[in-house]
Amino acid sequence: MFQDPFETPSCSRGVIILSGGMDSVTLLHHLVHNDNYVEALSFNYGQKHSKELGCAKRQCYDLGVSHTIIDLPFVNELFKSDLLESGDDLPHGHYEQDNMKQTVVPNRNMIMSAIAVGYASSIKADFVALGVHSGDHAIYPDCRKEFVEAFASAVKLADWEVIQIVAPFIYMDKKAILEIGLPLGVDYSQTWTCYEGKEKPEKTGATVERAEAFLSLGIKDPLFSDNEWDEMKTYLSDLAK
Amino acid sequence: MFQDPFETPSCSRGVIILSGGMDSVTLLHHLVHNDNYVEALSFNYGQKHSKELGCAKRQCYDLGVSHTIIDLPFVNELFKSDLLESGDDLPHGHYEQDNMKQTVVPNRNMIMSAIAVGYASSIKADFVALGVHSGDHAIYPDCRKEFVEAFASAVKLADWEVIQIVAPFIYMDKKAILEIGLPLGVDYSQTWTCYEGKEKPEKTGATVERAEAFLSLGIKDPLFSDNEWDEMKTYLSDLAK
Repeated sequence: MFQDPFETPSCSRGVIILSGGMDSVTLLHHLVHNDNYVEALSFNYGQKHSKELGCAKRQCYDLGVSHTIIDLPFVNELFKSDLLESGDDLPHGHYEQDNMKQTVVPNRNMIMSAIAVGYASSIKADFVALGVHSGDHAIYPDCRKEFVEAFASAVKLADWEVIQIVAPFIYMDKKAILEIGLPLGVDYSQTWTCYEGKEKPEKTGATVERAEAFLSLGIKDPLFSDNEWDEMKTYLSDLAK
Repeated sequence: MFQDPFETPSCSRGVIILSGGMDSVTLLHHLVHNDNYVEALSFNYGQKHSKELGCAKRQCYDLGVSHTIIDLPFVNELFKSDLLESGDDLPHGHYEQDNMKQTVVPNRNMIMSAIAVGYASSIKADFVALGVHSGDHAIYPDCRKEFVEAFASAVKLADWEVIQIVAPFIYMDKKAILEIGLPLGVDYSQTWTCYEGKEKPEKTGATVERAEAFLSLGIKDPLFSDNEWDEMKTYLSDLAK
């Protein structure tokens, strides 16, 4: 089939972990555009931004992709992270700030990926696709290329039927991801990136990174009104000082 | 702390995946005996032999060990395996038979281990202990030494706080495990190994392997009455022909 975990598969059968954020939604469209048969898994683990699951569902509905939401209530009950309903208030501002590490849900990506591999084996799929990208690395160890490679190696030994882990966006930032998604007609008003699940995006690290990506392409993030976008631009400009 | 995943930790803080079978129960006693602080996780994933969870609970109660059962209902709903309530009838006889592969739950060990790592990180533990052993290899790819090593490498990259994966029984068979547990006074009448969850063990691959281990030490598996044990010995002798 294909060997490099960072290439995009085509004409294959796969499972995608779909958060409902702009990265994994773009990856879903990208995989479908490359003639793959894809089923999507989303996870409800007590994240404050469970609103993203509605976006995941809507995107799958529009593309005619099978979508399953898996509940992992024990994460919220047993794990410590400010990203969870059971955690403290979320920090605002840039990813680089030290307190942003409080938003790590320990081993979340490996747990979701391991479940996706088991499901992929059960439906005789060839690959599991992850939307991790280069912008995630500073804070999230399990978004690094090194982690994806080590995890892919463990997966190859975990079952007699080999499931390939693919992460085609690993070298891209959110701007590059938008440059893939926009020509495919991805509706970014139906994606949710903010760590809070409120009516409008709050100024969390994820929102800041996403807004900067739209701004760098000279377009407005469709989650904001014109006035809100002007205010966000001022905020980003102040952050950069 | 310690580096080799196949050594036994001591005076450390860890999480053990406790099925309630003889291997993980012996490992629990072994870790406690080596002055570790241990918390136990068990998983209810729709296994036909969920009876094992009662044994896990009882063993933890007797040792004063904190025990949490995590429900993973999606495994039974979405995954294909004859080990699950949703699967077909279980095969009987030796592990080596081809149809025994139907009892593999795809990626089960990685899913449980990944969850245990996340929990270990949340409670600031140093290690996650797995009861895998040399007898599991023929059928179960994710019980092999190679898998444990690859998984441990991925775990080291998954979090800033490194959790060590340990599998002290990796080179042992069930006989060697009994030789550790019996001097520690492990009550094997409070362990459950059979893939079926009936009143008495059926002749599944797991039961056969366990009975052969007791027989090789010249002692009776306490799950059987004298008459049942005589019948099992005849069955094992016929299987060996």
